[in-house]
Amino acid sequence: MRKQITSTQNTFIKELFQLKEKARARKNTQTFLIEGLREITLAIKGAYVIKTILVDVNLISEKDIEGLLNSNSTPVEVIEISTDVYKKLALRETTEGILAVAKSKDLALQNIVFKSENPLILVAEAPEKPGNIGALLRTADAAGIDAVIIANPKTDLYNPNIIRSSVGCVFTVNLATGSTAEVISFLKEKNIQLYGAALTASVAYETIDYTKGSAIVVGTEATGLSNEWLQNTTKNIIIPMRGAIDSMNVSVSAAIILFEAVRQRKL
Amino acid sequence: MRKQITSTQNTFIKELFQLKEKARARKNTQTFLIEGLREITLAIKGAYVIKTILVDVNLISEKDIEGLLNSNSTPVEVIEISTDVYKKLALRETTEGILAVAKSKDLALQNIVFKSENPLILVAEAPEKPGNIGALLRTADAAGIDAVIIANPKTDLYNPNIIRSSVGCVFTVNLATGSTAEVISFLKEKNIQLYGAALTASVAYETIDYTKGSAIVVGTEATGLSNEWLQNTTKNIIIPMRGAIDSMNVSVSAAIILFEAVRQRKL
Repeated sequence: MRKQITSTQNTFIKELFQLKEKARARKNTQTFLIEGLREITLAIKGAYVIKTILVDVNLISEKDIEGLLNSNSTPVEVIEISTDVYKKLALRETTEGILAVAKSKDLALQNIVFKSENPLILVAEAPEKPGNIGALLRTADAAGIDAVIIANPKTDLYNPNIIRSSVGCVFTVNLATGSTAEVISFLKEKNIQLYGAALTASVAYETIDYTKGSAIVVGTEATGLSNEWLQNTTKNIIIPMRGAIDSMNVSVSAAIILFEAVRQRKL
Repeated sequence: MRKQITSTQNTFIKELFQLKEKARARKNTQTFLIEGLREITLAIKGAYVIKTILVDVNLISEKDIEGLLNSNSTPVEVIEISTDVYKKLALRETTEGILAVAKSKDLALQNIVFKSENPLILVAEAPEKPGNIGALLRTADAAGIDAVIIANPKTDLYNPNIIRSSVGCVFTVNLATGSTAEVISFLKEKNIQLYGAALTASVAYETIDYTKGSAIVVGTEATGLSNEWLQNTTKNIIIPMRGAIDSMNVSVSAAIILFEAVRQRKL
């Protein structure tokens, strides 16, 4: 028999609600919530430790629960929760009726292992909107790059809205964070070329040779990269804009440059 | 003295509220609402006929109003509205306090004039989310392509959320709509190569020569292109995905392919 929780006032459920709502609670406990079958599956694939699974059996099938448990290397406690409890913990009431409590990873720079000798890396400086961070992570996953580094993070990366907007790619990309100074010295030590996507620059992005170890550095849509970055890059590059508008969505810019790098590396 | 309207129950204001809310009201009157100084400025730049301007003088300066009026080639009636009326008509209560009533353009295919001999065109099949349509229009503007064609439109293009998410690019790009059959025969008659972005295809997008007249055709994120499109293209192409996830945001996909085409055309 599985343990059952039907009260939204249950102490454990209240703790989990804090994980949903508060970055501080996630930081203090080094745990976070994952919602949805695909997202939990990707977390397992990304070698995250799953501590507990919560299911609303009115919404999810035993077959799906079993499939998920089989994909995890160690046994995990499964708790049945009522639909009221599920609604309290879920972002999307209409979804699959499954949540997991997972252990955060240490996202320190020195833990990064690059899969290739000449890595291709995306650095995002201080992105704020969860939707933009999620879109960057999706792009990084699709391009199959070596790592994503968030410099001066403003947002906890285990924020439920980032997990959701990344459709779980936050678990599958090689991810790290650090201050801008730390990231610059880390990448320079490794002899990685730094290319800053600048709002004004004279070098068009497609004229660069990205086949060496390269990091594409993007700032926020509103203000672009800080001077600290702009002054420490190998080169600052620009995507020539040929229309009426002078700004581009940051995940679109990152995709254009990263896929040009991927194209060059295939040749 | 300008005319003033302070009641949200005023007949004219009620009509404008219908333009904000209902595609049918926009269609019947062939007019629509534009919110924001930048968006109205871009509509003027895009040769839209502005019929009336409404200002909340608590929010917008006389200097900004004057600058806008000077940019229009013909005189336009300006009506002062109260903040209550503004809030009723605006999507974003915190914005600039200016709205315009503009005349819709006839977006028929035969009205398109391409600026280049070998045009580069984006075709989007039946996009639904205003945010995705807006993002596609921003990308098309940035890439400076000849036209955007919406095949089988599901959404009225003068929807306030499209204007907003396109940051006004809906007015600056060369835009047309038609049924899928009409669009296919229109482009084939003009000898334009059709490249369908398919979820499964064997040809990588970067192996195509886009220097001839080319249309990049994208479907929805959920279902991709219809068979009607897939069977009528010159070639179906794919952006190779190298990660855990098999889908990409449609505006990101479109940007990757369009900017590759732009890159080739510069060489």
